[in-house]
Amino acid sequence: MKTVKDYIRTIVDFPHEGIMFRDVTTLFADPRGFRMCIDQMLHPYAGTRIDKVAGLEARGFIIGGAIAHQLSVGFIPIRKKGKLPGATVSEAYQLEYGEAVMEVHDDAIQPGEKVLLVDDLLATGGTAAAGIKLIERLGGEVVGCAFIIDLPEIGGHAKLEKMGMDVHALCAFEGA
Amino acid sequence: MKTVKDYIRTIVDFPHEGIMFRDVTTLFADPRGFRMCIDQMLHPYAGTRIDKVAGLEARGFIIGGAIAHQLSVGFIPIRKKGKLPGATVSEAYQLEYGEAVMEVHDDAIQPGEKVLLVDDLLATGGTAAAGIKLIERLGGEVVGCAFIIDLPEIGGHAKLEKMGMDVHALCAFEGA
Repeated sequence: MKTVKDYIRTIVDFPHEGIMFRDVTTLFADPRGFRMCIDQMLHPYAGTRIDKVAGLEARGFIIGGAIAHQLSVGFIPIRKKGKLPGATVSEAYQLEYGEAVMEVHDDAIQPGEKVLLVDDLLATGGTAAAGIKLIERLGGEVVGCAFIIDLPEIGGHAKLEKMGMDVHALCAFEGA
Repeated sequence: MKTVKDYIRTIVDFPHEGIMFRDVTTLFADPRGFRMCIDQMLHPYAGTRIDKVAGLEARGFIIGGAIAHQLSVGFIPIRKKGKLPGATVSEAYQLEYGEAVMEVHDDAIQPGEKVLLVDDLLATGGTAAAGIKLIERLGGEVVGCAFIIDLPEIGGHAKLEKMGMDVHALCAFEGA
């Protein structure tokens, strides 16, 4: 039987030359692939109290919506600057060139709530680290960071573990 | 007990003056609200064959991921131009000023597949109509269009029904 990794397609030179883009849309489009992906992302957290699932825009919304629904808990979108309509807190992070800003509604998490952070890909860990800081600024506790794909050579996994995070991914690819 | 509509927050003058923005993030953040929302969106389709769920970027990803997972079917993202890494088909639609383009991977749907299209809000129906055309161009059949919120005065509901669509929303608001 195919594994989750087998359903992931690699697109060469997207979004620019030299990048091997790991495309999860072929995983999501397959009924068995998507089901296995969501179920397996939750296995490390069986028995763990999770009050809310936070997803990073935009592919983290697909995963996060599914996981929150499976757990019957609330879902929190962490979005790029300017997309959320209510009062927000924001956190800047470094890009290859320049910086970007992620935001969360300032009433999205109550102090003491346990939050699972999810996204499709862990590369530099920049957006995930911004998400963790936003959740913690609202008084939430990040009980885990769950990804489909890890690119450990890029350093994000080590970066999040240095922040004290519990990090899980379903598979890893070499290089960038 | 609160209804789905009761969990939706209205933000005045977002994204610009004169708009009453219907904010579903407060619905998604609540465990009962989110659970009821996803379950109730599926009630009209109990007993209907659904092979894939297509979600419109970006809030449609949250709903679509949850619904596809509940049904154990595949999820297809319909995205703004330039976001999908593989070969796509695209469809332009009118905005208040100018136009925008939505895309789907050209291998995302197989001829004859039954597709449920989902998004949070039905206003002009422009993005939904573009999504329907994309699915049909790939040979898929749209078996339903499911929304949380309908703004019937804006005309999207009537527009989609004129296209022969089965349209359901969980609640309606007056005006824009």
